[in-house]
Amino acid sequence: MAIENETILIKTSAKSLNDITLRIKEQVRSSNIQDGICTLFIKHTSASLIIQENADPSVLRDIENFFKKLVPENNDLYVHTAEGSDDMPAHIRSLLTNTHLSIPIINKELQLGTWQGIYLYEHRNHFHERKVIVNIIGE
Amino acid sequence: MAIENETILIKTSAKSLNDITLRIKEQVRSSNIQDGICTLFIKHTSASLIIQENADPSVLRDIENFFKKLVPENNDLYVHTAEGSDDMPAHIRSLLTNTHLSIPIINKELQLGTWQGIYLYEHRNHFHERKVIVNIIGE
Amino acid sequence: MAIENETILIKTSAKSLNDITLRIKEQVRSSNIQDGICTLFIKHTSASLIIQENADPSVLRDIENFFKKLVPENNDLYVHTAEGSDDMPAHIRSLLTNTHLSIPIINKELQLGTWQGIYLYEHRNHFHERKVIVNIIGE
Repeated sequence: MAIENETILIKTSAKSLNDITLRIKEQVRSSNIQDGICTLFIKHTSASLIIQENADPSVLRDIENFFKKLVPENNDLYVHTAEGSDDMPAHIRSLLTNTHLSIPIINKELQLGTWQGIYLYEHRNHFHERKVIVNIIGE
Repeated sequence: MAIENETILIKTSAKSLNDITLRIKEQVRSSNIQDGICTLFIKHTSASLIIQENADPSVLRDIENFFKKLVPENNDLYVHTAEGSDDMPAHIRSLLTNTHLSIPIINKELQLGTWQGIYLYEHRNHFHERKVIVNIIGE
Repeated sequence: MAIENETILIKTSAKSLNDITLRIKEQVRSSNIQDGICTLFIKHTSASLIIQENADPSVLRDIENFFKKLVPENNDLYVHTAEGSDDMPAHIRSLLTNTHLSIPIINKELQLGTWQGIYLYEHRNHFHERKVIVNIIGE
């Protein structure tokens, strides 16, 4: 049994779902672990992680439209507005999605379903460089 | 320390919360692991996993009614409609709930609270056979 | 490799975000594990766990206001009302947040981002004593 912790940097664009599946798959393949579990942890509270359909890009567009309506950028709704009108909505959107994801590994392969991709969801209105820890535990 | 990965198949009915607690408990008891952690991972993006109250069935009905309102089946709201009017809402409902759950194990027993049950939440309007990986790590 | 499971009790106040970061950090430092992963699991379905901004307290206020609107306490919306008008909303709020959190550990330190705090989110209208399992796995 072994543990590996690696921090990777992901450059995002504004309010976007950034596909990081290949990057995580490579990280898993280059590890010394055959079978186990991979946990992704994002070190931010205005960007998050999700697993979603990787086939039709309009799914991602519909997700963003849904969140725009559910968590509007309207300063009248929030007390915390000093960091910009997109900051408080970004915190709430992060809260409703995930700060961490855990995915089983078998034979050095992440066990994603056929239509599952891993996305870093940038909720702010400007691009950022986001830190994600890839934690792999197994044997 | 050891790792076990088992894929189980769950037959669901339409838009329903399917109690899989007993099945997961049995999987944990029949493993060779005494203390550790059990992670469930669903290989789909239109069904999800939740932990919820197992006592009053009306809790499950209220949850379904809440999501019906929060994520309406209305094709005017979505671009992705080719797979049916229930598909895009199913993706969003999955996103708002969980693709994976992790539950500690002590003495071969899942450490659920007294009123906690594990449910596979089918978000589509037809029954499916869903794949869930049961990943157990421990000693 | 080793596993430690510890149950801790957290006294909450009504409808509040209770900062438990220091308590969890101490638990990790006093463990015998240097590198690994810490999973928190709450044994309830009307309180939950979140990671959120720890700098400006108005973020926490805005989160509570958002959930008050999203999941109103209005008995006309729910069948399950026998345990009080705050009970069913508490279940739904728990569902939309987290029953468990996993955070990597490096050199006995939880790898939280600079602005990340761990909160136990009490969704009921009265204080409670909540049980959280701190599961640490590593070497």
